[in-house]
This record gives sequence, C-alpha cells and structure tokens, in this order.
Amino acid sequence: MSEAVTKSAISPTRAEDFPEWYQQVVRAADLAENSEVRGCMVIKPWGFGIWENIQKQLNAMFKATGHRNAYFPLFIPLSYMEKEAEHVEGFAKECAVVTHHRLEVGPDGKMRPAPSAQLTEPLVIRPTSETIIGATFSKWIQSYRDLPLLINQWANVVRWEMRPRVFLRTTEFLWQEGHTVHETKEEAEAETLQMLKIYQQFAEEFLAIPNYEGEKTESERFPGAVTTLCIEAMMQDRKAVQSGTSHFLGQNFAKASDIRFLTRNGTQEFGWTTSWGASTRLVGEIIMVHADDDGAVLPPRIAPSHAVILPVVPKPDHRAAVWEAADKLAAELRQQRYAGEPILVEVDRRDLGGGVKNWEWIKRGIPIRIELGPRDLEKGTVAFSRRDRPMKEKAFLPSSEVVHTLSATLEEIQNNLFTRAKTFRDQHTIRIDSKTDFYDFFTAKNAEKPEIHGGFALAHWLDEPEVEAKIKEDLKVTIRCIPFAGELRGEPGKCPFSGKPSKGRVVFGKAY
Amino acid sequence: MSEAVTKSAISPTRAEDFPEWYQQVVRAADLAENSEVRGCMVIKPWGFGIWENIQKQLNAMFKATGHRNAYFPLFIPLSYMEKEAEHVEGFAKECAVVTHHRLEVGPDGKMRPAPSAQLTEPLVIRPTSETIIGATFSKWIQSYRDLPLLINQWANVVRWEMRPRVFLRTTEFLWQEGHTVHETKEEAEAETLQMLKIYQQFAEEFLAIPNYEGEKTESERFPGAVTTLCIEAMMQDRKAVQSGTSHFLGQNFAKASDIRFLTRNGTQEFGWTTSWGASTRLVGEIIMVHADDDGAVLPPRIAPSHAVILPVVPKPDHRAAVWEAADKLAAELRQQRYAGEPILVEVDRRDLGGGVKNWEWIKRGIPIRIELGPRDLEKGTVAFSRRDRPMKEKAFLPSSEVVHTLSATLEEIQNNLFTRAKTFRDQHTIRIDSKTDFYDFFTAKNAEKPEIHGGFALAHWLDEPEVEAKIKEDLKVTIRCIPFAGELRGEPGKCPFSGKPSKGRVVFGKAY
Repeated sequence: MSEAVTKSAISPTRAEDFPEWYQQVVRAADLAENSEVRGCMVIKPWGFGIWENIQKQLNAMFKATGHRNAYFPLFIPLSYMEKEAEHVEGFAKECAVVTHHRLEVGPDGKMRPAPSAQLTEPLVIRPTSETIIGATFSKWIQSYRDLPLLINQWANVVRWEMRPRVFLRTTEFLWQEGHTVHETKEEAEAETLQMLKIYQQFAEEFLAIPNYEGEKTESERFPGAVTTLCIEAMMQDRKAVQSGTSHFLGQNFAKASDIRFLTRNGTQEFGWTTSWGASTRLVGEIIMVHADDDGAVLPPRIAPSHAVILPVVPKPDHRAAVWEAADKLAAELRQQRYAGEPILVEVDRRDLGGGVKNWEWIKRGIPIRIELGPRDLEKGTVAFSRRDRPMKEKAFLPSSEVVHTLSATLEEIQNNLFTRAKTFRDQHTIRIDSKTDFYDFFTAKNAEKPEIHGGFALAHWLDEPEVEAKIKEDLKVTIRCIPFAGELRGEPGKCPFSGKPSKGRVVFGKAY
Repeated sequence: MSEAVTKSAISPTRAEDFPEWYQQVVRAADLAENSEVRGCMVIKPWGFGIWENIQKQLNAMFKATGHRNAYFPLFIPLSYMEKEAEHVEGFAKECAVVTHHRLEVGPDGKMRPAPSAQLTEPLVIRPTSETIIGATFSKWIQSYRDLPLLINQWANVVRWEMRPRVFLRTTEFLWQEGHTVHETKEEAEAETLQMLKIYQQFAEEFLAIPNYEGEKTESERFPGAVTTLCIEAMMQDRKAVQSGTSHFLGQNFAKASDIRFLTRNGTQEFGWTTSWGASTRLVGEIIMVHADDDGAVLPPRIAPSHAVILPVVPKPDHRAAVWEAADKLAAELRQQRYAGEPILVEVDRRDLGGGVKNWEWIKRGIPIRIELGPRDLEKGTVAFSRRDRPMKEKAFLPSSEVVHTLSATLEEIQNNLFTRAKTFRDQHTIRIDSKTDFYDFFTAKNAEKPEIHGGFALAHWLDEPEVEAKIKEDLKVTIRCIPFAGELRGEPGKCPFSGKPSKGRVVFGKAY
C-alpha cells in the first residue's frame, strides 16, 4: 500500500492530462465503460446508482410541482420531425434511422435487413420528443379545463455522436424531458423559469455544484425554442457544462402539432408550451467537478452508498469476531438517517487484501470508510476516513461516536464539497473589460497544465451575433448564458469587442 | 347520473365483446392509447403510475436478493445477435433495424436517410439483451471471485408486432430484464427458481393475481434457453397471460459470448447464466383480471392513488367550506399508512359536474371514493364508496371513522380482489381425462359470450411434442406450463391423446 499512498491512484493526474484523467476516473470508479457499439456506454451498477438517486430526487421535485410521468414512443415518424423546420434542421445530422422491421438470411448465408420489410416511412429514434409528444397532446387538449398539462418522461434518447465521451457526449443517453402546455404566454414563461430553478436547487443541494443561471443567446438556443434558459457549471479544467436546460417554446410547436384549445372566452387558441431536461451527463459533471487524483469524490446526497465497513482480518481465526462486529456496526448505522433517508452502508467481506479494498473504495468515491480489525474490537474503536480529507488521514474513534455523528459528518462533507467547488469556480471567474485581456485569458496556457485555460470571463456584450460568432471562431469560446437581472446585469459598461454601450455582463467560457 | 347507474359505463360489456371491452376500459380508465406509430403505445399518467408502482416493488425485491441495476445499449450489432443461432432465429422476424445515422434533404426537397451515412453494420434495436450484456459480462468476469454477478436492467425493448394490442402486445414495451452469471449449474438453477418465486409472490401480494407456476415445454421455451420457467394467470375471458418468466440458459450464452472464469481449482470454465423478465404487459393483465363492466378495478397495493375526495358544491357559496373540509380530510388521511407507505389521496376540485367526476374515478378504478358536501359537513359524515362493491352502494360514515379504518379497508379490498380472481380461476380450471371432453372444453362456446371458452384444462401429457403440436394446430391451445412437483404432478395417469402412461398433469389453455 505504501507506494500507492505516496503516488496518486489515478494516472495521469488532472494536471498532467485532464481529458485522460477523466476517462481513467470513470473507469477506476467503476461508473461506466464504452460498449462495442460506437458511442454507446454501459452504465455500471455504481454509476447507475448515482443516476437512480438523481432520478429519485428530481422526480420528487417534479411531482411536488404538479408534474406527472408518462411514456411516449421511442420512434418518431420522419414526417413528424419535419413539422417544425428549425427543429428538424437542428437534429437531422444526429438522427439514427430505422428503415426495416425484420431480419432474414441473405444470399451469403448471413443475416441482413429483409428488403421485403422496408418501412414505407422511415422512423427516427427520438433525439428529443417535442414532435411525438406534441402530436399526442393535440388529442388530449380540448379546452382550457385541460390546462395546464404538466408531463414528464424518463427515457433514453439517441443523438449520433462522432466524438463520444462517456457520460458527457454519448450517442444514447438517459434523461428526463418535461413537456407542458399552458393557457397563456405568462404561465408558460413562469413554468420555464420554475423548472430552471428546480435544476439550480437540485444541483446545489444534491450535486454540490454551483451554477450560473441565465438565458442562451440565439445561436445556442434549442432548435425551435423562443427562449432557452440554462444553468452552467465550471469543471476543474475550467470549462463549462450545461447542467440543465428549460425552454419556452412559445406557440411554435403548438402550431406545428396543432395543439389548440377552447379559451375561457369561447375562442380557439394555440397552447403555449415548454420543455426542459437533464441527463446522465450530470454523472460526468459530478466527476469533473468533485473528483481528484485518487478517483471519484461523491457528494453524500447522491452517492449510491454513504459508508463502507472494511473488516480487517489478519488471521483466519479473527474472522468470525471481526465480521460479527462489522455487521453489528452496519446494523446500528443503518438505523440512523441522513437527509431524511436511512444511511446506506456496505460491508466489504470480499476475499481480497485490505489495501486493495481500501483503494477500490477511495477510487469509487464513497464518502466514508471505516476499518475495523481485532485490535479495534478490544478498544471499541474504528479507523474512520473521510473522502473529502487527505488519504492518509485516519481518525481512531469510539464506534458509538461514529454511529451518533455519521449523519452530521455526511452533511459536513456535502457542504465542504459545495464550498470547495464554489471557491474554485469563483477563483476562475473574472470580470474582463478589454479585448486583449479576454483573448489572453482564453489562450494563455499554463505550461504544466495543457488544455487548461483561464475559466469563465464576465464581459460586456450587446446582443451582437457577429461579435459572438467571431469569438467562437477565434477561441472556441461561447456565451454560456446571459445572466438574469441582478448583480451582473445591473452593471452598465462597454462591449470590449464593438465598443458599444452594454447593459450588462454575460458569462463566456469554453464548453463541453 | 341515473342513467349511468342502470347501464354499465363500458360498452360493450365483457360478455358482449371481451377484446373490445378491454380496449374500451384501457381508454376509459385513461391508462394508455395507441400512438400514430403503428404498434407503439403512449402510456398515460394513470397507467404509468401503475407501472411506477410495479417498478418500485419489484425493484425492492430484486435489491433485497442482491441484484443491482445497470444500463446497457439500446443497439445491438447484427453480428452479436448471430452469436447464438437459436436466439437470432427466434427474434429475426421481429427486429427493428437501424441502417443510417443521419438525415438529409433529398432531391424531392424532403428529408430522407442520408445515403452517405449508411452504417457498415446494421444495428438491431434490442428485442432482449442477452447478447449485448453477454459481451459486456465476458469482460467483467475473470475469476470465481467475480461471481455470482447479479444484474438487472429497466429498459424499453422493441419486437415488431403485426397484430398489436395495447399493453399486451406492443412493438415497443417497457420491462426489466435480469441477467446473472454463476459458478455452477446448481446455483444458476436456484437463481432461476428464486426469481420465478419473486414474480409469483409479487403477482399474488401486489397485483392480487393468482398464477400457476411451472416449466415451459420445448416449443414454448425462450430461444437459446435450456429451461424456461413461468407463471401463468387466467384472464376473465379464461385465456392465459404469462405474468413473468425466468430462464436457465445453461452455458449456451456463455459460450456464445465467451463468458469464462478461473475456477477455484485453477481451471477455466464457462459461466452458467440466467435471465428473467416482466413487462408493461402486467398492466394489461391487471385490467383483464380485475376490471368490470364499469371500468378498471385497481388493487390498492398497485393503484397510483388509494382514494379520491370529491367535494360536492351545489351552490358557489358552499365552495370555501367544502373545499376546506376536503383538504382537511385529505391531510388526515395522508397521515395514515397502508402497507408501509403513506396513503395516497387526491382531491378533485375540477370545475365539472359531480356525476361526471364520480364516473371518471369509477372508470379509473381508484379503490375508494369519498363524497363530501355541505350537508355532510353539518353531520360530520362523508359518503364512502368502494370500487370492489356495487356502484350504488354508499356508506355514510363519520369522517373520523374513515380516517381510522381506511388502511384496513384497503387491505380488505386487496384481499377481496385476490379471492375473487382465484375463485374465478379455480372455477374455470378443470381436470380432463378424455380427448373428447378436452376438445369440447376448448370449442364449446357460450352463445352469449362469444370468444369465451372453457378455461384451463389440467390434463395428462407425456413429453410428446407431436401431441402438443396437434392440439395447437386443432385448437390454438398450448401447454401454458408443466407444474412443479406437487399436487398436479404427483398424480399418475394416462395421456388422453396418446393413451400412454403419464407422470402428471400439465396446464393447457389459450394464450394471449
């Protein structure tokens, strides 16, 4: 074990090669792997456990705000996709298309799609479900009494990906997509904002990730939307990831899908719709924000397990007593509650060396590790380690104390991770008022940290798409969001690129 | 309301036209509808709520027996499907095939699959995941220390369906598929049986549906399996639906996918695998078993809500007081627990007539309806109706009594539904010992109930595939299962078709 304590468990480190470090953490933490189907991942139980917790918590928040789950077809007829022009244009390049509904043995003796079973109309695998859900909603909605219609779907979607990266950009991914219809523009806009606030709250409280919130510029808008709201987080390489997005669709999709209703005045009007989503990308984000050079570091509120007990059995005749004590401690811990739920404890009895097991759990990012051996039994203590503290740090605590303080310790870890992420984000977010500084900020590389640039720049910008396009072309830097009214917007100034007066700053960054 | 009380809410009735009655109940109960994508359904919130409860309960049972969830790709390369010969042969006719990964504007100005984006190897949408999961497991498993590997997946699957029927047979459906690998044949067989017993327990305790359990004959076996176990329930038209299935795959898929492990003796051996699944078909089964001529009748343990409070507001100035009382009662009921969970209560405040609302909830099958009007307020009572009792029956109970007895009443309803279903099943399951009686049983039609035949026949059969094939050809009747050792098997007799001695009876029936 000694060599592992002095070196880091993940190679390369973040500083050495951030993209490769990320892949290695995902692997070492047993979260997911690439499948042999290009661009598609296998989500392993530990990674899926994180997703299950994300689902559980978001689901509760959606239901508390009146949304209900439903399920719509995987397949979208090509003609549906075409109903909204911008929409199909936005997704055409990423669509997987089903053209046949049967296999048969071909002339070479191998299986092939049966030519006689070619579909009259090809079916697109849903890249998102506005069009198929819109077609359904148009049947469900007759009058204002049917509104608001507040629906959510948990589903897999497919967007063909040429440069896949596990969790962050995969051809198939899991997500939820909310779809709602309202009587008025104002109600739909309020819904759009409400759902963004839910993502924001969820990211802060559960993922321990701070986000900038705001609106997308036209060039970054969802195809077919009137406005797209988003929350944007900073990764440890100072790039941005969109953590959640909420779209006000106006009447665009209602017109495309003929979603009309009888108003209170007896007239017919098109509904006002919204859609909003978050995906398995969040799992990648958790890694990119919190993990370190020893592997994953999971926020307790989203970890599949809170603590692992590692029985230390130097000789076979210690086994019975140590295992019994481990089970007893586990049972006591499971009686405790953290954040309203029972504490989740694993006992790792596998026939492997103690060092190997300890490092496996470090890499997996479990918040707490508890080692328990024959000498601890005599003293009534355990060796207690926290994933948010240095690897070597161990506290020798009475096991009764561990039982009574574990919940508070988990909350402390949760808060530490948030504070750490926020401090990092704030350190690398700066106000920039000159073009030179801006270009320097995004091009100056730290020799020791290739690929890592400055971070987020808060700069003035005046709704000028040409300026935005030039910056993207020069630097691959985009406007992550136009913050809502508040500190950053109530600050008039001058656009450093066009020199024109601006009403406020926007958040620039490089995005995944 | 009076006309609705004398007639039934669903037309046609079960006796008039069972298949059409089923479609109408699914529609009237707001469970699901056919989408415009042929064979694919939209599961509406009330129907999806049932599926969410099925997921929740099965998931808990799977986790309690050591299984963990994971997620595998939607796409299976054609070459994977071909690895197991029987398997691909069994599914070839139902496979949806992706051949392109991009759309483009064609010469006619319309979208089409881009010819330049044709896949080198077509991808099959998973009809089931043995082959793609097997390929993954072969990498996860090195030695006996990695076994048993106990994985479950919740997913959508696609099997192209020429004669779709909502929930029962749809091109896309939702399901769970368990996939496990074991060191020995015996362990894998024990797992196969354990999972069948879990389905059996789940069906009895939650769905209130009794099932025969046993083994499939060779002709009904899962393509590639060594043995297929199943549980089979009787619908109200006396046909059979398979409620759950568990396959012992021997080493067939391990050999096809190269799942090998280092044994405790240091040799290399192929793993022994199982798979098992249950699907959204269960929702259709709940309807076919419990629903009546007034709509769905949901077992309380699986209903999305347990009770609805219907405020009766004869005049606008009653509204405030009645709504307040309804909310107060709902809050009190939500404090109560049923089957270990909080009681789920809806208050239906919609601006619709009382009769319309009452009938909507009857059709949806909610276990309890509570009407509450100004006169009830004075007396401190409510009008209390149970879905398992005749529509006209109302009890006028003190609301405090309702609060304290609701949990027990729900359990009574749950038990009543099971007893009713079991009595029906047993009434229509008979021992038959002559070929003439057998053919009569399955061909004699009740003039008033077309399509409804005798039920299940328990007859002797001696592992003779020719006999089985002839019966299927003549009557469309199949062997639903060969029961395990027990009452029906420990009864030697004579096969009524071949005249040869038999060691026990099997369950014959017409299947969906």
